[in-house]
Amino acid sequence: MTRITVINPNTSDVLTETIGAAARQVARGGVDVVAVRSPVGVETVESHAEEAIAAVGVLEQVRLHDQETDAFVIACFGDTGVAAAREVASGPVVGMTEAALQAACLISHRFAVITMPTRTIAHTERVVRSLGLEHRVSVHAVDVPVHELETGTSHLLDVFAAEGRRAIEQDGAEAVVLGCAGLADLVDPLTEALGVPVVEGVAAAVGFAAALLAMGLGTSRASTFAAVPGLPGFGLVEEVGR
Amino acid sequence: MTRITVINPNTSDVLTETIGAAARQVARGGVDVVAVRSPVGVETVESHAEEAIAAVGVLEQVRLHDQETDAFVIACFGDTGVAAAREVASGPVVGMTEAALQAACLISHRFAVITMPTRTIAHTERVVRSLGLEHRVSVHAVDVPVHELETGTSHLLDVFAAEGRRAIEQDGAEAVVLGCAGLADLVDPLTEALGVPVVEGVAAAVGFAAALLAMGLGTSRASTFAAVPGLPGFGLVEEVGR
Amino acid sequence: MTRITVINPNTSDVLTETIGAAARQVARGGVDVVAVRSPVGVETVESHAEEAIAAVGVLEQVRLHDQETDAFVIACFGDTGVAAAREVASGPVVGMTEAALQAACLISHRFAVITMPTRTIAHTERVVRSLGLEHRVSVHAVDVPVHELETGTSHLLDVFAAEGRRAIEQDGAEAVVLGCAGLADLVDPLTEALGVPVVEGVAAAVGFAAALLAMGLGTSRASTFAAVPGLPGFGLVEEVGR
Amino acid sequence: MTRITVINPNTSDVLTETIGAAARQVARGGVDVVAVRSPVGVETVESHAEEAIAAVGVLEQVRLHDQETDAFVIACFGDTGVAAAREVASGPVVGMTEAALQAACLISHRFAVITMPTRTIAHTERVVRSLGLEHRVSVHAVDVPVHELETGTSHLLDVFAAEGRRAIEQDGAEAVVLGCAGLADLVDPLTEALGVPVVEGVAAAVGFAAALLAMGLGTSRASTFAAVPGLPGFGLVEEVGR
Amino acid sequence: MTRITVINPNTSDVLTETIGAAARQVARGGVDVVAVRSPVGVETVESHAEEAIAAVGVLEQVRLHDQETDAFVIACFGDTGVAAAREVASGPVVGMTEAALQAACLISHRFAVITMPTRTIAHTERVVRSLGLEHRVSVHAVDVPVHELETGTSHLLDVFAAEGRRAIEQDGAEAVVLGCAGLADLVDPLTEALGVPVVEGVAAAVGFAAALLAMGLGTSRASTFAAVPGLPGFGLVEEVGR
Amino acid sequence: MTRITVINPNTSDVLTETIGAAARQVARGGVDVVAVRSPVGVETVESHAEEAIAAVGVLEQVRLHDQETDAFVIACFGDTGVAAAREVASGPVVGMTEAALQAACLISHRFAVITMPTRTIAHTERVVRSLGLEHRVSVHAVDVPVHELETGTSHLLDVFAAEGRRAIEQDGAEAVVLGCAGLADLVDPLTEALGVPVVEGVAAAVGFAAALLAMGLGTSRASTFAAVPGLPGFGLVEEVGR
Repeated sequence: MTRITVINPNTSDVLTETIGAAARQVARGGVDVVAVRSPVGVETVESHAEEAIAAVGVLEQVRLHDQETDAFVIACFGDTGVAAAREVASGPVVGMTEAALQAACLISHRFAVITMPTRTIAHTERVVRSLGLEHRVSVHAVDVPVHELETGTSHLLDVFAAEGRRAIEQDGAEAVVLGCAGLADLVDPLTEALGVPVVEGVAAAVGFAAALLAMGLGTSRASTFAAVPGLPGFGLVEEVGR
Repeated sequence: MTRITVINPNTSDVLTETIGAAARQVARGGVDVVAVRSPVGVETVESHAEEAIAAVGVLEQVRLHDQETDAFVIACFGDTGVAAAREVASGPVVGMTEAALQAACLISHRFAVITMPTRTIAHTERVVRSLGLEHRVSVHAVDVPVHELETGTSHLLDVFAAEGRRAIEQDGAEAVVLGCAGLADLVDPLTEALGVPVVEGVAAAVGFAAALLAMGLGTSRASTFAAVPGLPGFGLVEEVGR
Repeated sequence: MTRITVINPNTSDVLTETIGAAARQVARGGVDVVAVRSPVGVETVESHAEEAIAAVGVLEQVRLHDQETDAFVIACFGDTGVAAAREVASGPVVGMTEAALQAACLISHRFAVITMPTRTIAHTERVVRSLGLEHRVSVHAVDVPVHELETGTSHLLDVFAAEGRRAIEQDGAEAVVLGCAGLADLVDPLTEALGVPVVEGVAAAVGFAAALLAMGLGTSRASTFAAVPGLPGFGLVEEVGR
Repeated sequence: MTRITVINPNTSDVLTETIGAAARQVARGGVDVVAVRSPVGVETVESHAEEAIAAVGVLEQVRLHDQETDAFVIACFGDTGVAAAREVASGPVVGMTEAALQAACLISHRFAVITMPTRTIAHTERVVRSLGLEHRVSVHAVDVPVHELETGTSHLLDVFAAEGRRAIEQDGAEAVVLGCAGLADLVDPLTEALGVPVVEGVAAAVGFAAALLAMGLGTSRASTFAAVPGLPGFGLVEEVGR
Repeated sequence: MTRITVINPNTSDVLTETIGAAARQVARGGVDVVAVRSPVGVETVESHAEEAIAAVGVLEQVRLHDQETDAFVIACFGDTGVAAAREVASGPVVGMTEAALQAACLISHRFAVITMPTRTIAHTERVVRSLGLEHRVSVHAVDVPVHELETGTSHLLDVFAAEGRRAIEQDGAEAVVLGCAGLADLVDPLTEALGVPVVEGVAAAVGFAAALLAMGLGTSRASTFAAVPGLPGFGLVEEVGR
Repeated sequence: MTRITVINPNTSDVLTETIGAAARQVARGGVDVVAVRSPVGVETVESHAEEAIAAVGVLEQVRLHDQETDAFVIACFGDTGVAAAREVASGPVVGMTEAALQAACLISHRFAVITMPTRTIAHTERVVRSLGLEHRVSVHAVDVPVHELETGTSHLLDVFAAEGRRAIEQDGAEAVVLGCAGLADLVDPLTEALGVPVVEGVAAAVGFAAALLAMGLGTSRASTFAAVPGLPGFGLVEEVGR
């Protein structure tokens, strides 16, 4: 049995459940998915300041669950804490943003990310640029606060569909990436509304993490992501997380 | 049951078997892998001219097996025919090069591709540039003809290890991508020799194709990869392939 | 006497004649231009799958005419088969796309390509990216099937002019590249309609090939485009081409 | 009187003093410089995990000193926390890395960063790429742990000079950026040893922050760096910092 | 006492005064600013041909004032003559364009330049590309001739505000750079009109030049900007300038 | 009869003759080549300051010969004055650097420029970046002053061959561009010594200019290179040139 732990970097139980459900839906043959969250921290991640706080929570969860898991998925669009988690986790770590962008590359020539708060466009662009995908992606936003996801996604279908149509017409987008965790329920209706594939990043990250595990691949320890010997103990980080 | 068909674009039975074995090793939970090859065409793909001929063979195999498969993997470093196959196949198509590069991104900051004939460096660079990864990859070659793979890979370990060490020292590579199909047997000994993860592209492509299938994702038909209505029938292409 | 052979990669006699006429118009001082086409293959090239088939036809024509020609021009927007042809031809090979883009760079700061089917925008972008010209070119499409060219181009003037005006206003284009072979008759009326230079790629490729010949320059055999020793004989390829 | 607060993101008193001294040396006409540090956190920042923890400490210091300061300088090569600090601080925030790279651009065509632990090359490359300077910078490392700076820098002159010479000879570097805070004492001897300008980032950041203040410029609140309304109170963050 | 000489590359006394006043407003603690102009040359710089003539005038002013100044600022958007001036001046030379772009990077994620004649967009793009900032800047123009600045800037507020709003809405610009010298009076009203920071390049260049001086940094003489031994004497250049 | 005027931007009669001879060698069918030089200015162009002075001389020659010529070629590696000349000349203007780089793209995958003084590498890189060719070119220098060309090129064969071999081995260069005017005599012996094509930029520029003329293409007047109405008369510029 292989276990993938999905870390929700905010403190919402509702979103943790939604994310876990989305992740489990793509788990295949012997892959067990568990979703966890930071006990304390920020309710949603919509700014660099919240990313900074959430990253420490992500690190804490990695340390808490490292023994019992084979791989981690970080379920925050913008991939906060992913590089740090790679240094701490024993197995591979996949960010939902990088996985979503890579999956979209495999099924389309050009595509769009539709993120939620406009101010987080910069967060997506950071991952896009780190992967070198500026020439294939355009980044849009519906400008809705993330906490609206707590009450479900169906009321968001129209704004996502409108923004998706804009991306298709203006940018020639041939697929759409959902730019936030917790939007899995939008995949089917949005696919139908837009007529192009819709990529959900948590699912992509779980699928790609499972692929890495099947290949026996883990994070390189050669240099950038080598283990960090003197990292402060749980004493400090648990304070953040409780 | 989900089927992934791996297409070896050259005519070697030995390499088709090696590739199929590598692919099956990463197949998990309900994924069935079949490896096929062009009946006629080129013995190995080491030039743009051979790529051109092989691409037609790839297309033919896609058409022959499309009904009985859920996804295709194209097992040729350089991804010849992948874009064309996307237009013809009903399900997703993953190239071994793009998948290998993406997998390497998930486990390392910088990495190197080690391909076989030096003249094919340009083929790898084409895929690297299409994905925008120039800033993370360096491309090396051992300058050995591909047909040497017919007699196994163990005699190649030393040259791959030497080139890998060069990439690690000179370019700061933290992982190595094997730049040719049929090299799966090198993964373990090379990992041990170099101390960094070694990525095999056929395995990566099978893993990522399985992930796409689990997510229900297929090639976008919106524009670039829409079906091609007037494509000449099997009459023509079978001539090439027989 | 210097001969440049222009290869039309589709099977249309009408287009072969149009292309030949356009090519001959720029031939100067001792340059003889011949236009040939694949005997069989695809009627038009509007997809990656058709590009794959057409590339083999291009290769065949190169082999058939290599002895009697000094240079080749490949008259297909997207430059399918150009890299392969460089390996096989004794003299230089110029693609109409690369030549058109380079010519446009010499007469304007920013410019636009107007191609025909929208789905082939990706083909143009491939050449643009290979040359590194993303910062100077925008790619547009009139979304008309290529076979319409068989009955001439005058009915297309209005759509090209409308798209050209859009490129001038929106992107600051200062010149327009015709993104398809067979459009030479549009150069004069479109120049007049738009007030900016209009570049026809077949003419550009013939002019640049003549320049290479005058300089005594041919394809480098050092590595990427070295001759391909074991390429399958005419037996196979002639089947495709007849 | 204008005050610039320099935040040392690690917990070393020695380094805080060194950094403060370096900063004060470039303060001119009415600029008062204060150097502070996180009360708890990491002793040095040499990994992404330490960056994550340090970023929260940076944020805390910004909140503690925001009322009494006009601008902040973040004195950590890699600029951890700078984007987050921009959202929280009332005045402008300048990272030592971005300022050092910009200063080097004003006095040289190509230059090199020499950082300390090799594993942090990726951190520098992140800032380089965010600024788009890949074509002008090469990144080197002496591979010495940061804590060695606690006992001064004179024993490091030789390794920095050797690496600097390598950058000058191999990459054509015409200036050198010191890739770590706390190295100000190396500026003069290294300038003499190498014969090219040596840029110290804390000084550059203080100088540029003073320039922004003189111009009346502060962080744009339009979108990316707008204030963060629901950021958790000092209760949480102080835990991290104590 | 430190002196920064601001060179206005055109021959307008009015603009020289405006530019000098803008520069003096940011001079702090012991920095003395002097503004000079070419005695003859072009009235405004709105083309590459005028840039060529103006560059020689810039060079002449550098030679005339080099002994009595510590640093130069070149007050022409497009930075004509800056590289040449670096070779001739004893102290550092800062172009208003590069300084403005760098300052904007420190306070915003994305920003726009609004230049005056549309034809000079290419001049701004040249500096943007030299710094590698294409991913963060969009370049706009109000298409007003530069000589209109002789009668002040207040009649230009509306067109700049309109273009600024377009940049904010269409490109997500979070700050605006004034793309011409002589516009300092627009900073305050435009900031108010747009609600985003407005960057004036002469002020930025003076501030950054002062920072370089405080750090003791001058142009690297290692290679690109080494002194030019055989440069023709004042005899020639003075002809141009008189 | 079509006339192309080649402008040597320095004042050497010897080099003007060498350049003219090289240019005439590629002139075909009805193309007449004339080589001219600035009457006064700089003896060689090896710095930005000399480029600035030479650019005005180039402009003057364009104005003097515009009536009697169909196109101009600027024979200075670095293409100083080319953009300005485009605004002033009635016909097309081709720089030797851009033409050489484009010709090399048509015959090789990767190539190297070998320029003369090391300090001018930055000048070549400026044109490379303007064309977007960083991924295909590496720039080398033999570090020999340009005036050595006055006594011929045969004594330079060895250093060029040594540097060429370095480019072939280290960078995988498959062709070499001579990075200075006046080196045409090196083409044949260097081609033989290196076994790769050697591109001479003046010849390439003449060939490409002839191609533009045959196509009826001239500089776009739409925006960037529109005519410059108020350019100071010959009174000023002739002073520079005498």
